[in-house]
Amino acid sequence: MILDAEETDGPLIETIVTGAGAFSEEEVDALGAVWAEFLDLGAEDSGYDFLVERDGGVVLGFVCYGSRELTDGVFDLLSVAVDAAALRQGIGRRLLRAGEGEAQDAGARMVMAETSGTARHLGVRGLLQSAGYEVEATIKDFYCVGDDLHVFVKRF
Amino acid sequence: MILDAEETDGPLIETIVTGAGAFSEEEVDALGAVWAEFLDLGAEDSGYDFLVERDGGVVLGFVCYGSRELTDGVFDLLSVAVDAAALRQGIGRRLLRAGEGEAQDAGARMVMAETSGTARHLGVRGLLQSAGYEVEATIKDFYCVGDDLHVFVKRF
Repeated sequence: MILDAEETDGPLIETIVTGAGAFSEEEVDALGAVWAEFLDLGAEDSGYDFLVERDGGVVLGFVCYGSRELTDGVFDLLSVAVDAAALRQGIGRRLLRAGEGEAQDAGARMVMAETSGTARHLGVRGLLQSAGYEVEATIKDFYCVGDDLHVFVKRF
Repeated sequence: MILDAEETDGPLIETIVTGAGAFSEEEVDALGAVWAEFLDLGAEDSGYDFLVERDGGVVLGFVCYGSRELTDGVFDLLSVAVDAAALRQGIGRRLLRAGEGEAQDAGARMVMAETSGTARHLGVRGLLQSAGYEVEATIKDFYCVGDDLHVFVKRF
């Protein structure tokens, strides 16, 4: 069942993120900072929101998104990940759909996701494509030389 | 003369920003938040830096840039503006060049600038083009419907 994340979900989300293997140390730290701000200020004042797929006391996946500064109706999909033991059950798709719904309720015209073009983001790129996102911009050698930025966009 | 910004330059920078007419209220607020973080934490810990063109006690222009999270060697040119009374003297070009130099000293491989495709950013787009920046990505209807994002990039 997809629900709003609770404070006690922090360690479970971190376990999924570190276990997924797709996130660099800097990305884990950046997501940790977003989580801390979300807990500290709440969804409205931080601009961030987290949803989790919860099965009893276990978190099987999460999605995090936030409204984009300086825009009217653009939301960033900041992170989505599913526990390695719960892949291929459609949880990622359901999390994306739930996040998009909440974003639309909050006024989103479009959602953007910044991903790496390398193998480490292969899983999330496949998920985004299957969910109707399209690459609308590419910046060569963004993360580092040989690791391009692909900006996926979905419009409502 | 182009120098590091000092704490007392804050109101002078704000006067230039609000006088330039190119910045929305949200952009002025966002730049104010960057300035506050820069003053609070310093250039190294905030990741931001401000340079000013100073003529005696008067600030004629400024440039602000910062290292981009999650990247190795990408810097954002966050803002550049020149006092309306001091335009067409090459101050913008000199500020850009000085900022690029400092960014390169700090490890920049490239500098990125996010601009609006509408008339309000016409001046800065012209400045960027004349300084060797190229549009590498465009996101339609980013700021709002009818106001696209143009991402300018300069590589070193």
